[in-house]
Amino acid sequence: MSENVSEQFDVIIVGGGPAGLAAGLYAARMKLSAVLLERGPLGGQLLNTELIEDYPGFESILGSDLAVRMGDHARNFGLDIREFQSVAEIDVAGDGTKVVRLEDGSELVAPALVMAAGGLPRRLGVPGEEEFAGRGVSYCAVCDGAFFKRQELAVVGGGDAALEEGDFLTRYASKVYIIHRRDQFRAQPVLQDRARANPKIEFILEAQVREIAGDQAVQRIRYVQRGEEKELQVGGVFIFVGFLPNSGLIKAHIDHDEAGYLLTDRNTQTSIEGLWAVGDVRAQLTKQIATAVGDGTTAAVAASQHVEQLKDRERRASVA
Amino acid sequence: MSENVSEQFDVIIVGGGPAGLAAGLYAARMKLSAVLLERGPLGGQLLNTELIEDYPGFESILGSDLAVRMGDHARNFGLDIREFQSVAEIDVAGDGTKVVRLEDGSELVAPALVMAAGGLPRRLGVPGEEEFAGRGVSYCAVCDGAFFKRQELAVVGGGDAALEEGDFLTRYASKVYIIHRRDQFRAQPVLQDRARANPKIEFILEAQVREIAGDQAVQRIRYVQRGEEKELQVGGVFIFVGFLPNSGLIKAHIDHDEAGYLLTDRNTQTSIEGLWAVGDVRAQLTKQIATAVGDGTTAAVAASQHVEQLKDRERRASVA
Repeated sequence: MSENVSEQFDVIIVGGGPAGLAAGLYAARMKLSAVLLERGPLGGQLLNTELIEDYPGFESILGSDLAVRMGDHARNFGLDIREFQSVAEIDVAGDGTKVVRLEDGSELVAPALVMAAGGLPRRLGVPGEEEFAGRGVSYCAVCDGAFFKRQELAVVGGGDAALEEGDFLTRYASKVYIIHRRDQFRAQPVLQDRARANPKIEFILEAQVREIAGDQAVQRIRYVQRGEEKELQVGGVFIFVGFLPNSGLIKAHIDHDEAGYLLTDRNTQTSIEGLWAVGDVRAQLTKQIATAVGDGTTAAVAASQHVEQLKDRERRASVA
Repeated sequence: MSENVSEQFDVIIVGGGPAGLAAGLYAARMKLSAVLLERGPLGGQLLNTELIEDYPGFESILGSDLAVRMGDHARNFGLDIREFQSVAEIDVAGDGTKVVRLEDGSELVAPALVMAAGGLPRRLGVPGEEEFAGRGVSYCAVCDGAFFKRQELAVVGGGDAALEEGDFLTRYASKVYIIHRRDQFRAQPVLQDRARANPKIEFILEAQVREIAGDQAVQRIRYVQRGEEKELQVGGVFIFVGFLPNSGLIKAHIDHDEAGYLLTDRNTQTSIEGLWAVGDVRAQLTKQIATAVGDGTTAAVAASQHVEQLKDRERRASVA
C-alpha cells in the first residue's frame, strides 16, 4: 500500500480574492501555519473590475492595483501564497481533517479550511460581452451603477435580480431598458410592480440580445425582437442572468441554497465543523469587497479558535 | 400644542467609526438621503489606535490617517456628515419610524437607522493607562499582539478574554504574566487549563495593578500582591476587564446579550425592523476594522432594500 505524502497545515484557504486574502492575512498575523491556494493569479473578482470606488479608505483604485496591494500585504505578514494551483477536490476525512487534492496530484491537509473560491456571474455569451467587461458591461449594480449617472442603460434578464437592480439603476441612469427573452418575467410580482411603477423603466420583451458594441466603451446593444433586428444606444449593459458559486469542489455533504451558495452561521462556519465559507461563495445579501474582507477576518479568527480547541481536546485526552 | 420640526431622511447612521462610515458611503452611493451623526470627530476606535496593519490593502497606516481617508471618502460621495452631535436617545414610533433626539433638542426621523455607536473597553483606571494607550497599553490582542514579538507582556483580568487572549499573545511574546485581583479566575475551566498548560504563561493572583509606567512607551507595571508592592518589566500591558457597547441610547426594547451587545440576523438587522447594528455595538466574534466595514456595507444595502419595500407597501395601499 503506497502512502500519500500530504503537507500539513493549521488552515488551508482556497481562493485568492479579497475574502481569501483577508483570511490569509489574519491567519498569518495570528501565527497559524496557513497556505492560500489560488488557481489563477491573486485577486479574484478584483481582476474583473476596472475601477473600485467603494472599498472604504480607497476613494478610487484600479482593481488590479488593489489585488496587488492585498496580495503583498498578506505575503509580507508571512502567508504562504501559491498561485496557479488548481484544486481538484476538497474532502473531509472521518476525523474531521480537511483534505485538498490538487490537479497535479499533491495533497494538503488541515483541521481548518476556509472556502473562498468565489464564483462567476453567468455570461450571456454574445459578441462584445467579454471585450467590454469593465468598460460598460457590468454584473453588479451596487458596484458600478454610480459610474453611469444620467446615461441610458440596458439590463438583461428576467429574474429578481434583473428587476430589482434595474429599478435600482434608475437612481443614476436617465433611462433603463430591461431586455428579456420571454414574454413575461420570472421575478416576484412585487418587484415587477415596482419596476412597472417606475417611469424611467421600459420593458423590451421576447427579445434576444445579439451583440454589445462600441468603440472605447459600450455604445449600443443589438437584439432581435419577434424576428426584427433592433438596436439601442446605451452607455452600459448590466447582465443579470445568474451567478455560479464555486461550491462544487467540496465533495462532502454541505448545506447550501438552491443556487449553490454555501449556508453559514454568523461566524461564517458552514454545516461542516472547521470549514468556513467567505465572500461570494457564501449565501449573503451582497457581494462587495468590504463584506468579503469582513467574512475572511471572521473566519480566520474562528479558525484560530478552532485550532486551539482541538489542542484542548488532545490535552484532555492525554490526561485521561 | 407645539409641533416638533423634525428633519426627515431615508436612513440615519449613528456613529462615525469604520462601520458607520462604510454604511454612510454605501448609503450615499446608493442615492439614499442619509445623515451620519458622530458625537466627536470622525473615526471612532481608529482614533484610539496608533498604527494599523490589519486592514487589508493598507500594510501600515496611522489610525488617524485612516479615519480621515474613510471620512473624506464618504463625504466626497455625498454623505451628510455631522460631527460633534450628541445623540440623547433613539426611539421607535408606533409606525416604525426611527426617531433620533439630539442633546441640543433637535430631532431627526427616518424609516431606517443604522446603529454604529461602537463601545469602549472598560478602563482599569490606573495612572499611565491613558498616557500609554496605543504605546504599549492595548485592549485588543488580535489587533496589537504582532507588535510585541519576543517581548514580555502583562495581561490584566480574570475572565474568558483575559485567559484566552493571554494564551493567544504567547504566539508573539516570550512571556505573558496574567495579573488578576482575585485568588481564582472567572474564566471557563477549559481556558484556564489551556493557559496553565502553556509554559510561557505565569499567573499573578490577588494582585492589584497600581500603575503602568515607562518613558516613550510602556516599560513596567506596578502592583500590590497580598500587601507587598511589586514591579514587572514588560513591553506591553493588555487590559481585558470588559467592554461597554453603546447600546443604551436605544429606548425601545431591542434584543441584546448579557453584556449589552445588540443581537442581529445575518444581515445585521436587530429585533426591530428597519434598525441595523454594525461594528463593535453588535454581538459578534471579533472587533476588527475589516468586519466593521463589512457590517456597514451589508446594513446599507439592507436599508436601501427596506426603503424600497416601504415604497412598495405605500404603492399597494394607494392602489387598494
